[in-house]
Amino acid sequence: MVPTKDRNHLSTALEYEGNLFLFDCGENTQKQIKLLKLPIGKIRKIFISHWHGDHVLGLPGLIQTLSNTDNVTKIEIYGPEKSKKFVKHMLECTIFDSKIPIEVFEFKPKKNEILKVVDEKTYEISCCKLNHSVPCIGYSFKKKDSLNVDIEKAKEFGLEKNPKLAEIKEGKTIEHNGRTINPKELTYMKKGVKICFVFDTRPCIGIDLLVKNCDYLVMEATFVYSKHKDKAEEYDHMSAYETASIAKKNNVGTLLLTHFSQRYKKIDELEAEAKAVFENTVCGHDLMSYNIKK
Amino acid sequence: MVPTKDRNHLSTALEYEGNLFLFDCGENTQKQIKLLKLPIGKIRKIFISHWHGDHVLGLPGLIQTLSNTDNVTKIEIYGPEKSKKFVKHMLECTIFDSKIPIEVFEFKPKKNEILKVVDEKTYEISCCKLNHSVPCIGYSFKKKDSLNVDIEKAKEFGLEKNPKLAEIKEGKTIEHNGRTINPKELTYMKKGVKICFVFDTRPCIGIDLLVKNCDYLVMEATFVYSKHKDKAEEYDHMSAYETASIAKKNNVGTLLLTHFSQRYKKIDELEAEAKAVFENTVCGHDLMSYNIKK
Repeated sequence: MVPTKDRNHLSTALEYEGNLFLFDCGENTQKQIKLLKLPIGKIRKIFISHWHGDHVLGLPGLIQTLSNTDNVTKIEIYGPEKSKKFVKHMLECTIFDSKIPIEVFEFKPKKNEILKVVDEKTYEISCCKLNHSVPCIGYSFKKKDSLNVDIEKAKEFGLEKNPKLAEIKEGKTIEHNGRTINPKELTYMKKGVKICFVFDTRPCIGIDLLVKNCDYLVMEATFVYSKHKDKAEEYDHMSAYETASIAKKNNVGTLLLTHFSQRYKKIDELEAEAKAVFENTVCGHDLMSYNIKK
Repeated sequence: MVPTKDRNHLSTALEYEGNLFLFDCGENTQKQIKLLKLPIGKIRKIFISHWHGDHVLGLPGLIQTLSNTDNVTKIEIYGPEKSKKFVKHMLECTIFDSKIPIEVFEFKPKKNEILKVVDEKTYEISCCKLNHSVPCIGYSFKKKDSLNVDIEKAKEFGLEKNPKLAEIKEGKTIEHNGRTINPKELTYMKKGVKICFVFDTRPCIGIDLLVKNCDYLVMEATFVYSKHKDKAEEYDHMSAYETASIAKKNNVGTLLLTHFSQRYKKIDELEAEAKAVFENTVCGHDLMSYNIKK
């Protein structure tokens, strides 16, 4: 809840094809974005897990900065129920007239439901209900599966570097050198990467549904199970052991841990506890960049 | 308005006899307080100049932290008109129930008026109207003048280290060795230090009234006059030259400059411009501590 000397409040940025998506936006996010030299004007959508201060108090300042940033024409905020009400108060808690529209989308997924919240040409974003003390949701980003051209086969058809390949990629049948070529003859389906963001929760069915077989899971691990299992239960948070167990059970590719309690100055115990259960675990730290393999 | 790699939004803390007073509270103030190792739980009063985001967006997070800090029993916020409304929105822009009362005091000083906002036993805090695009006020902190004992004279009266000196300091006449001693016989009046905080303004009569003969003036100098005089006028801010001129005109002791535009990566031009007019100028920087001579 409180920033420490080394750790700011939470925010995670996903950079995808020149766009930035934020998942939560704790106090000081705009400064951290600047330190990371990320293109702040490319923030298109901001996804909020829940409206506790430590996850959202960077929003008012970020909105004001974006409203004054060249080429930013609107801001989209996604969150759980009552998000519109909270954003309204944020816009009225200082003297500020936004130069651009701010759209807020609220979602209330059921316990067993995965709800699609964004559906674009090459990606989709969904959410699930989490199990926290207040309405809270987790998100998945999924690059859609796409047709890829088998270069060797394209050569056989004399289509190397031919503009017609773009049509083939879209699944269209083409004519070439008097022949009808079906996309199936020289393409294969490439599975799109799936990345999940799960903050502030106890284990629940929604998480399992959301993160099943995902490539990357960015998830909270507030406590060390062997020391503070009771605190995790009391405050509706995860321990490193529990988070790693969820990654293991659901066949996750890589687990990225974040949101560590201020009581731990060093996080080696958290890391060791998670790795004992799920080896492919990486602990996040402030200003960390992580390269997603597509 | 926007934090840079090296400069956070504005906040100035005054430490006085174990209490902390904040003057403005930009985003990330609570983290900076932690980095400075200041006793966050000793924040008693927070003074707001005006309700533009860059001066106040650290408040919601700080309030939430203070509400959960041991021995903090209430928070007092002082500011210009409509401060109650803005604080109300801040308290409702996240899911948060304060465990302690939050009192807000609003002031609307007239153009030619110095308004006392706090009057305690050993100090008083006053405000004046500034000249910004929105309602904005400047503050002065004044340690009250106090009777001090002349140690040599106390020796002559045989009163060295005598508990009766405490009464003398309070201005009381005492009996000692069969003699009636009037405080005037062995005390002198010590002038209390006066420190002013003036942010976001154009020159105006209120500033002159507030800062006249003060020992320290902490004041904004957003622009370099020789380069951006027009910007200072356009955005209702000060240039270094103008701020230094005010310090000179009003016989200020030490001028501490802050609130530099993000357009200046280095502030040497600002500093040189101010020092050419008022030599005893110090430029502030993030996490700077400055020792006030009492």
